[in-house]
Amino acid sequence: MKQIRGGVTAPKGFTASGIHVGIRKNREKKDLALIWSAKPCSAAAVYTTNIVIGQPLIVTKEHLADGMAQAIIVNSGNANTCTGEQGIAAARRMAALVAEKLPVSPKDVVVASTGVIGQQLDVSVIEAGMDALVAGLSKTGNIDAREAIMTTDTVKKEVTIQFEIDGAIITIGAMAKGSGMIHPNMATMLSFITTDCAISSAMLQKALDESVKRTYNRVSVDGDTSTNDMVVILANGEAGNKIISEDGPAYREFYDALNWLDTQLARMIAKDGEGATKLIECTVEGAADEDKAEQLAKGVICSSLVKTAFFGADANWGRILCALGYTRKDFDPNKVDVAFESASGYIDVCKNGAPLPFSEEKAKKILSYQEVTVYVGLNEGDAQATAWGCDLSYEYVRINGDYRT
Amino acid sequence: MKQIRGGVTAPKGFTASGIHVGIRKNREKKDLALIWSAKPCSAAAVYTTNIVIGQPLIVTKEHLADGMAQAIIVNSGNANTCTGEQGIAAARRMAALVAEKLPVSPKDVVVASTGVIGQQLDVSVIEAGMDALVAGLSKTGNIDAREAIMTTDTVKKEVTIQFEIDGAIITIGAMAKGSGMIHPNMATMLSFITTDCAISSAMLQKALDESVKRTYNRVSVDGDTSTNDMVVILANGEAGNKIISEDGPAYREFYDALNWLDTQLARMIAKDGEGATKLIECTVEGAADEDKAEQLAKGVICSSLVKTAFFGADANWGRILCALGYTRKDFDPNKVDVAFESASGYIDVCKNGAPLPFSEEKAKKILSYQEVTVYVGLNEGDAQATAWGCDLSYEYVRINGDYRT
Repeated sequence: MKQIRGGVTAPKGFTASGIHVGIRKNREKKDLALIWSAKPCSAAAVYTTNIVIGQPLIVTKEHLADGMAQAIIVNSGNANTCTGEQGIAAARRMAALVAEKLPVSPKDVVVASTGVIGQQLDVSVIEAGMDALVAGLSKTGNIDAREAIMTTDTVKKEVTIQFEIDGAIITIGAMAKGSGMIHPNMATMLSFITTDCAISSAMLQKALDESVKRTYNRVSVDGDTSTNDMVVILANGEAGNKIISEDGPAYREFYDALNWLDTQLARMIAKDGEGATKLIECTVEGAADEDKAEQLAKGVICSSLVKTAFFGADANWGRILCALGYTRKDFDPNKVDVAFESASGYIDVCKNGAPLPFSEEKAKKILSYQEVTVYVGLNEGDAQATAWGCDLSYEYVRINGDYRT
Repeated sequence: MKQIRGGVTAPKGFTASGIHVGIRKNREKKDLALIWSAKPCSAAAVYTTNIVIGQPLIVTKEHLADGMAQAIIVNSGNANTCTGEQGIAAARRMAALVAEKLPVSPKDVVVASTGVIGQQLDVSVIEAGMDALVAGLSKTGNIDAREAIMTTDTVKKEVTIQFEIDGAIITIGAMAKGSGMIHPNMATMLSFITTDCAISSAMLQKALDESVKRTYNRVSVDGDTSTNDMVVILANGEAGNKIISEDGPAYREFYDALNWLDTQLARMIAKDGEGATKLIECTVEGAADEDKAEQLAKGVICSSLVKTAFFGADANWGRILCALGYTRKDFDPNKVDVAFESASGYIDVCKNGAPLPFSEEKAKKILSYQEVTVYVGLNEGDAQATAWGCDLSYEYVRINGDYRT
């Protein structure tokens, strides 16, 4: 497997486009994206678990009920959520506008929105921009599309990989956005994945479900599960491999590649958390089972007090034990070990739930790096899990204190 | 019922004291407190639900197993938590030191600690200060004691009330601390309550359990449930009322008074949350049952995005619907109403889950006050519940970025 360039347009048969139509006031910021496959695709998706869900998700769920899709239209600047019937009509209109310009049924168009909740979306500006959007579709359109879906993101999130299945070269490309309102137990933030692999909708959904659980759902920025999260994958089969329609070596190769790509995107989203200065990776090892390890790792990366301590590069490991404890998962606090690692080095700070003497200076240096790993050893079994979060900084407060105005 | 002065020493037969012994480096800050009852007391307590619990709680649970106590010793500056057997010995030694100086068994001494987790507590400085601590016991010692238990608190938290049961004048006094590492589903932060009411341990525990659920457990500052939370109440019977040993009018009067006092302390703790500039009170009304109303109200006051919006006085009500939704409680988003109120006025912002036109200027003015109420109407039943939180500010990040160092 190798990493290449190209994002969602790298797989055969996909083009994309991104433009500014005026949903956002800032004319420098693109706010509408389109992904198009020349051929109909197997499609799979995972959505937010929030009870309040965005109007675009209601429409997209209907459209993907048959496991097929051919286009994705996404706007940023307005989430089109808590907008009632008027908002559902707006989401349907977005799909219809694509079908008016391209040879596709509205039922094969995925609709997504991200931005402020509780304001009606003005579809007339999207309608006015449709000719330019469709005219812009190209093999390098990934560059504009990945920018058009960003909100408070400071980094473009794109990963592209290539690998072989039975001699056929398969490409998977993806773009994601996500920086705030991000929390485990969701489906996920927005992530759009394309591939030319030939795979059935059912196996595509299975691979996506399995991977989302181990990647996006182990990320938290602020504990707020969005109303609009979704991951969508389209597979148009142009790579020419024998179609994957059951579990087996080909499915496993596809899953491993997809999971690797999703892991990279998950880490990018955590590292680019609103106001974040660093990525916090927490690996819980020696657990009796993976589920427990996952819940405990999430507990650590979600703790406001752990997050602020990392912002201050303060080796306050007591807060890590405190966070493990309030997950209420059953473990023996007197067997817990804690260590920190970064590019600067490694340090043990807690053994059997009690303090170890350590160099504050060395710990400070390790915690000052942009990517820091916390190792938690439970010493009760062989399972492990990793979760990704970020520190909590002044910037997070500034960004969110006046997001709307 | 009336409010009076005097705190934990206001009920007959109680004295208190507070001094600096050197657990904290800052000599201006008192760090050791003692509460003493001349007569043995019925006692009840509620503790943190964290799996990792402080060493003092392990010892206090043993000591209160018989429902009796006569003294409370508390230090700030070190939580004596994640400190292993050495920490348990330190907590036992604190109780023994009280028993060496006063006519009480170590088993009737409550021990509590608050401060940094994961550092051994130096009991020698407490031992050196015991003569001064005991000599300081007085009817005005509440003033020093309430200061000695503070950590990042900026406000002293004390409430005292008087009321009658069957002609006997009953007094309840309390002091609490709590500013960070505070989150619902805990027992609570530190709160010490004294009363001269005659009441059995069993009824005292029942009243405390019932009230904690409706007060302290509906507060959140930062989502972190501490390892050292406890509420303790001592009742020495000196008011001379007929002992309350069963449910009935006298118990109900006592419960109502205790619950009123606990509500005031809970609001004080939320308002004095680390870095907070305002109290956020969320009342969920029209719910099918109180439990659902409680979970939803907590969801709102715990959301980082709601908290930062309030810091910025931004009427971003979409984040409130989002927070309600990810509690996963079953309700109809299309029936939800939202309104804001403060000393400045009242404003409706959302009706049936969709936006209402409103004056941004008026909303900003309402949200700029120090105490703001969010009303959420579910329009499905008659139950309601209120939870208390605070905004998330730059100060929270500053305080917790370098708490230890």
